[in-house]
Amino acid sequence: MKLYFSPFSPYVRKCLVVAHELGLDARITLLPSSAHPVTRDQAIIVNNPLGKVPTLLTDDGQALYDSRVICEYLDDLAGGALFPKTGTARWQALTLHALADGMLDAALLARYEDVARPEPIRWKEWRAGQLDKIETSLAHLEANLQTLAGRVDIGSLSMACALWYLDVRFAELQWRGRYPKVADWYLAFSQRPSTQMTWAL
Amino acid sequence: MKLYFSPFSPYVRKCLVVAHELGLDARITLLPSSAHPVTRDQAIIVNNPLGKVPTLLTDDGQALYDSRVICEYLDDLAGGALFPKTGTARWQALTLHALADGMLDAALLARYEDVARPEPIRWKEWRAGQLDKIETSLAHLEANLQTLAGRVDIGSLSMACALWYLDVRFAELQWRGRYPKVADWYLAFSQRPSTQMTWAL
Repeated sequence: MKLYFSPFSPYVRKCLVVAHELGLDARITLLPSSAHPVTRDQAIIVNNPLGKVPTLLTDDGQALYDSRVICEYLDDLAGGALFPKTGTARWQALTLHALADGMLDAALLARYEDVARPEPIRWKEWRAGQLDKIETSLAHLEANLQTLAGRVDIGSLSMACALWYLDVRFAELQWRGRYPKVADWYLAFSQRPSTQMTWAL
Repeated sequence: MKLYFSPFSPYVRKCLVVAHELGLDARITLLPSSAHPVTRDQAIIVNNPLGKVPTLLTDDGQALYDSRVICEYLDDLAGGALFPKTGTARWQALTLHALADGMLDAALLARYEDVARPEPIRWKEWRAGQLDKIETSLAHLEANLQTLAGRVDIGSLSMACALWYLDVRFAELQWRGRYPKVADWYLAFSQRPSTQMTWAL
């Protein structure tokens, strides 16, 4: 398999963490990319018209995206159990996955505001609104730690990737002091080898 | 069930179109909301810390989001077949769903640029980049109409909702002239009663 890759994309990282958990990462060749919302990467667009990473090219010729689809495909390919098959466990895991993605969507929009958009036309209330989504999400997790604790599935793995990205790009948020239960969970969860991996082309 | 609702949210519409296809829409009570990325809706946040619509409150007390999770939940609840269960059919439908969502994500960002962000700090290259995602996506569909044709599943229903939103908010794109096969498909597909529904509180 081949995966359009960017080292700081948290969505790419999520796919690779999942692949590592499933023992599939050695089967994935990383392809260089330069996805950007303004200067679009034409090489990706050939396979994914949205021009985004991650995009997975499967061994049987499919081009799959986005990260949610790729992660579920990998789990199915490996006969894994990271996506609970049915019932409340499935909806809880998928909703936690959506929460992590929503936190990342917000973080990425704040990041674009900070570094892509020219300084004179930045909108501080937009950035604040995006970061507030992260704040209310962390507060929700702090008050509902049972949604994370003791689980190794697509929900908890996604959330670990979201928290990784906060450390990489928004260390100044210093969220651990305000959400100590989430911090303790993440400290323990990030002992998993999959979450400690680094990848490079 | 209860659904946080906004009449012009294409993601809410997708959930309601799916519910209508499954015969579930009469069981869903619509809840008022005023989701906004800057002025956040605290009533939604209680149930979904991202503060976004759609958010579904199930009869057994779960709060589910986002639209992808809600649509799959509804399909499961009704014993439907809008989400192919396995194999290539599943990955194709889910990737088409992701494509439709990606087109909508781009359209929403362009829309926020047009109407939410104060005029002096708009960035025309950002807006152009977002709209170009829609353009390359439509070109992909035009060249690969078999991904849509003859299918009634979460992929085609999602794409119909994306095209609906383009008509509602970006009629000036006049995409039908450039992508006549997609236009013909949409004209035929939008004869389905589910896609003609309107909802209001």
